[in-house]
Amino acid sequence: MFNILDHVAIVVNDIDRSLLIWKEKFGLKISADEIVANGGIRLLHLDVENMQIQLLQPLDDRHPIAEWLKQHGEGLHHLCFYVDDFDTAINFAKATGLVKPEVMPHDGPHKKRAIFLDTDKSMGVRIELTGN
Amino acid sequence: MFNILDHVAIVVNDIDRSLLIWKEKFGLKISADEIVANGGIRLLHLDVENMQIQLLQPLDDRHPIAEWLKQHGEGLHHLCFYVDDFDTAINFAKATGLVKPEVMPHDGPHKKRAIFLDTDKSMGVRIELTGN
Repeated sequence: MFNILDHVAIVVNDIDRSLLIWKEKFGLKISADEIVANGGIRLLHLDVENMQIQLLQPLDDRHPIAEWLKQHGEGLHHLCFYVDDFDTAINFAKATGLVKPEVMPHDGPHKKRAIFLDTDKSMGVRIELTGN
Repeated sequence: MFNILDHVAIVVNDIDRSLLIWKEKFGLKISADEIVANGGIRLLHLDVENMQIQLLQPLDDRHPIAEWLKQHGEGLHHLCFYVDDFDTAINFAKATGLVKPEVMPHDGPHKKRAIFLDTDKSMGVRIELTGN
């Protein structure tokens, strides 16, 4: 289940401003640019050869990422592993306590689903699983 | 220069304790376990198929990572890009202001060298380059 990293996510104040670095200076290509979570978040994916970097901008103050940004400032937010079979992975993760029973999948980029592990089980590091 | 991610680094209090999750629970394999920076840091690398996860534990209170850990607690610390030609990459990075002129390379894992970009140029995200 933890074989392939899908992306590493960076929370930013303003994706357009961040692209002045990530796209213009570092030369990375955009592979997805979407608004998800009922308008709450803008997700932009940048391709490197072996995985993706996700820029994450809260668009709604009520979204948890907005609160995180207020507390921490811009920076690295989470790691996301890709799983082939998302439903099986969720069932396994819930059965083994890695995901809390009440947590529901959320929208990921590229129309995938995603879910966060219980951070108590990963010593504070936010870890997401995504898949179809 | 920013084509391949080498690793994403997580600062931890105690690598051996963290391995109860990363190795025992997530099943990742250890590919390197080294003490570098004149005994100041322990670096442990875990392999996923497409890149590596680095666990980073300060062993000396005077090392900057010890101070970072005190301030932030355990968590994601930096992204590292792999470059084929490290000397050329450093010269380019210094010429374009991505690395401050006075910054010198430090020891990376697997006997590679590494250097951090100026965080003012990457909106606070710590980015490292590594290569031979």
